Amino acid sequence: MRWSQMFVPTLRDDPAEADAPSHRLLLRAGYVRQLTAGHYSLLPLAVRVRSKIIGIVRQEMDAIGAQEMLLPALHPAEPWRRSGRWELMGQEMFRLQDRRGADLALGMTHEEIFATVARELNSYKQLPQQWYQFQTKFRDEPRPKGGLMRTREFTMKDAYSFDIDRAGLDVSFDAYHGAYTRIFARLGIPALPCDASSGTMGGAGSTEFMCPADVGEDLVAHSPACGYAANIERATSALPEPSDGPGLPAPERFDTPGVRTIDDLTAYGAPGDRQIKTLVYVLDGALTLVLLRGDHALNEQKLVDATGAAGIRAAEPAEIQDALGALPGSLGAVGVSLPVIADEALRRRRDMFTGANIDDMHLRGVDVARDITVGTWADLREVAAGEPCPRCGEPLEIVRAIEIGHIFKLGDRYARALGVEVLDPDGKRVPVVMGSYGIGVERAMAAIVETHHDERGIVWPVAVAPFQVAVVIAQSDDADVAGAAELIYGALRDAGVDVVIDDRAERAGVKFRDVELTGIPYRVTVGRRGLAEGVAEVTARATGDTEKVPLDAAAAHVRALLASA
Amino acid sequence: MRWSQMFVPTLRDDPAEADAPSHRLLLRAGYVRQLTAGHYSLLPLAVRVRSKIIGIVRQEMDAIGAQEMLLPALHPAEPWRRSGRWELMGQEMFRLQDRRGADLALGMTHEEIFATVARELNSYKQLPQQWYQFQTKFRDEPRPKGGLMRTREFTMKDAYSFDIDRAGLDVSFDAYHGAYTRIFARLGIPALPCDASSGTMGGAGSTEFMCPADVGEDLVAHSPACGYAANIERATSALPEPSDGPGLPAPERFDTPGVRTIDDLTAYGAPGDRQIKTLVYVLDGALTLVLLRGDHALNEQKLVDATGAAGIRAAEPAEIQDALGALPGSLGAVGVSLPVIADEALRRRRDMFTGANIDDMHLRGVDVARDITVGTWADLREVAAGEPCPRCGEPLEIVRAIEIGHIFKLGDRYARALGVEVLDPDGKRVPVVMGSYGIGVERAMAAIVETHHDERGIVWPVAVAPFQVAVVIAQSDDADVAGAAELIYGALRDAGVDVVIDDRAERAGVKFRDVELTGIPYRVTVGRRGLAEGVAEVTARATGDTEKVPLDAAAAHVRALLASA
Repeated sequence: MRWSQMFVPTLRDDPAEADAPSHRLLLRAGYVRQLTAGHYSLLPLAVRVRSKIIGIVRQEMDAIGAQEMLLPALHPAEPWRRSGRWELMGQEMFRLQDRRGADLALGMTHEEIFATVARELNSYKQLPQQWYQFQTKFRDEPRPKGGLMRTREFTMKDAYSFDIDRAGLDVSFDAYHGAYTRIFARLGIPALPCDASSGTMGGAGSTEFMCPADVGEDLVAHSPACGYAANIERATSALPEPSDGPGLPAPERFDTPGVRTIDDLTAYGAPGDRQIKTLVYVLDGALTLVLLRGDHALNEQKLVDATGAAGIRAAEPAEIQDALGALPGSLGAVGVSLPVIADEALRRRRDMFTGANIDDMHLRGVDVARDITVGTWADLREVAAGEPCPRCGEPLEIVRAIEIGHIFKLGDRYARALGVEVLDPDGKRVPVVMGSYGIGVERAMAAIVETHHDERGIVWPVAVAPFQVAVVIAQSDDADVAGAAELIYGALRDAGVDVVIDDRAERAGVKFRDVELTGIPYRVTVGRRGLAEGVAEVTARATGDTEKVPLDAAAAHVRALLASA
Repeated sequence: MRWSQMFVPTLRDDPAEADAPSHRLLLRAGYVRQLTAGHYSLLPLAVRVRSKIIGIVRQEMDAIGAQEMLLPALHPAEPWRRSGRWELMGQEMFRLQDRRGADLALGMTHEEIFATVARELNSYKQLPQQWYQFQTKFRDEPRPKGGLMRTREFTMKDAYSFDIDRAGLDVSFDAYHGAYTRIFARLGIPALPCDASSGTMGGAGSTEFMCPADVGEDLVAHSPACGYAANIERATSALPEPSDGPGLPAPERFDTPGVRTIDDLTAYGAPGDRQIKTLVYVLDGALTLVLLRGDHALNEQKLVDATGAAGIRAAEPAEIQDALGALPGSLGAVGVSLPVIADEALRRRRDMFTGANIDDMHLRGVDVARDITVGTWADLREVAAGEPCPRCGEPLEIVRAIEIGHIFKLGDRYARALGVEVLDPDGKRVPVVMGSYGIGVERAMAAIVETHHDERGIVWPVAVAPFQVAVVIAQSDDADVAGAAELIYGALRDAGVDVVIDDRAERAGVKFRDVELTGIPYRVTVGRRGLAEGVAEVTARATGDTEKVPLDAAAAHVRALLASA
């Protein structure tokens, strides 16, 4: 490939609109352009990287026996209605009608659609099946951002496993876990497998693969000591339980004029860990009290997962006043008939403080078991940095991370909803047990850039670089220089190396800058001075190290570098 | 690949819903399944064929210096509004709104979107540019049909050329013409380049590549003698002009009770070629008379192309009665003040018959130039089989055909609308000149099947077959047979041949039937009887010819067959 014929619109300066390094660099190095918020055009260099990522993912999928398919991107509403997700997906699903008025949706994931194909399976003898595709997903994100990190349209490798039972699913799930580990290693992305919330997927559990990065939108609780890692939406810790005194025979009301916050109440001899924090939520339309320890924070996803609620929002002050007779600041669950869901950290607690449901009054001496009707106990609180790891007891770190893969044990939810049944060995029709496994291709590209760049640009790992080598003609008006460079270029190209020759009528400095900015792993420079000495310069992008190599040995030298990369 | 692990749901019988052979066979051989009308799931075998087709198209695009990109499938309305096609595309464009209420469309083609990227070009020195992608296109077809032939969602290779002037466009256009010729030859699709209507693309001309097939939706006028070929929407013929007498000094009204048709009027001494047929159309809201010779038929696309009308429909009888005072059967253009568009075949005609705009009355002695105010002369009539070729004069054939590619000289229409300008050599900003070039990937797959099948199934050309070779274990319960087959399979696989081994616990007949139905070009059968003789059987799908080949020479023999295929 000749640089002079490529469309690589590099920019001299950082684009103003980009924050994340990958966003900034992919724009500046001429890889992508935004069409509109959340929709990017991939220019030639990005298409090359994307196809290498896809190649690696495809190899690893094929290696575990998965079969590639391609299912439609535009879906009829019917399978989504059958699974219950037509409603559940809410505004994140792009919806439309065709010319006949039939409801359609743009696929944001494909469990339902692969299930429709799987209806054709009829015997346990055909199982397990592993099916995957590379297909565009569409999601109406409320806040697309970070360039390729969170878009409304992206390529996903999504895979689905079909097993006769949960033991089979475990085997399939482990196979994908292994494949994902290999994929991210080959892509050069540090990937931490994390216990995760299954969100709208449902099912029996899921693992996220997380790439630690400052621009990540997720938080991961991680113990470097033992390797424990969990999304903050699922993470727990081994908190010591405070020992309470016996307390009072019954809760006792007292005046707390002007007290609105947990902090305010500490002035009345109530440290945060002896208070009950009372939040009011509307879960699928029902007003619900949510109780946590005063010094703990709610993680809303945990509340969603604990209740299975599709719609969740904090209650408005007026709703709270109507229901409890008081405003936030003096709320409590004692003697209240609304549904109550409480965090596990409140179990067995006595002698606690809480609001009295009268403005400017609180209760003390509350015994949770005795005084409050808790309908549901659940893990609701968000762990904080420094808390003891639930596995090894060492302090947890909380790190920002990019979700680069997510694998789910779905169980038989979709099979039941969509009628995917096979005959088991006893001749009985049973629903198949499904798993689902996703990697966002363009997000993986962004994650690689996040973890592989420096102040001069991108530093691609060889396996995904758009070109492995750039041969730079330092003085393109010098026929001898150009001729020597062309020889090396030709030798590399004929040897199957992904090589580009920078034959533009530009100064050498401009060419060096572009090769560095675009992140090509090796640069071979042929210039007048080197030509006089009979050498080319071979520069490694990652280290900046330059070696002089005899012209006629340059191609072989670069091939050896690539082979050991 | 092992057949026992693949999902290839072949059907014993022809599916009832399928008419076209490709539709029937792709369903029956387990390649595709319909999700809903116009949307197909591609199963593993189809994905393999698709990726081979894409590979061939990509090679030929790269060979003419085109660069692969990937632009969004979901588009903001703005560029479509700027080009005027937001309205023009009508119901065929899927439209939706996002959560903020912004108008979006699913891309049915990408001229506007590639133009937005091309705005970044700034000098004639960067031209020509050739950009392409493989991207899903969405079209809300009124009647999706024929399986993969006409769907609402399909992969298109669309390419766009950007040149400084029309001479450059001609060069680019010719390059694509050549590439398309090579692509269809490699795919095994007989392709007739045809002069074509540009439809909603606009521009200076276009060529369709047509695959003759009984199930084709297009009609092509073709002269085998000289190679002339044109879509019926554009085809012309060299009709002899009738010689008219001087006629009457003025049109003369006469009674024609009960006459409603051209045929009816022949009883009054008016042969079809001496009648004027008067049709009434509503073109972009305006009532317009359309005149043809009595024995000629209108081609509506020609009317659209001649007038540039976006909306076209036949007028309702009530509209006609209101405007002309008579009903169809007695209509004419003499003395009428509505716009009149007439077919070229009526030029210079005298002594003609036409309706009098009074029910049951006609005129004779009409001199078109003297008596009718024709606003526009155009080629409107549809040529008929047997008419003389406009180039060589030999009789034209009319054949059904599938449109498998379409290339357009767009000119500067989109560049002007979307502001794609570069500096020319004189330093002046000028709009670039565009071309656009499309191949539907799944339709190409269907066209190959239409032209490559027999009564036992598909007969893929080697270049696009899902597997080049199937090794069949005739008795899978015989370890010696299986072992000998595995050796051949392993040798072929290690040599890079695309090979599948049919290791299912099925009767040999079932396996043979599936290999034939799925269209795999070569079958290597290892069975007990052959094993005793030390031979395998090599069967060519296309001819049915079987050869006995020593077991240890079988792999090399098949490789030689493939190399010469």
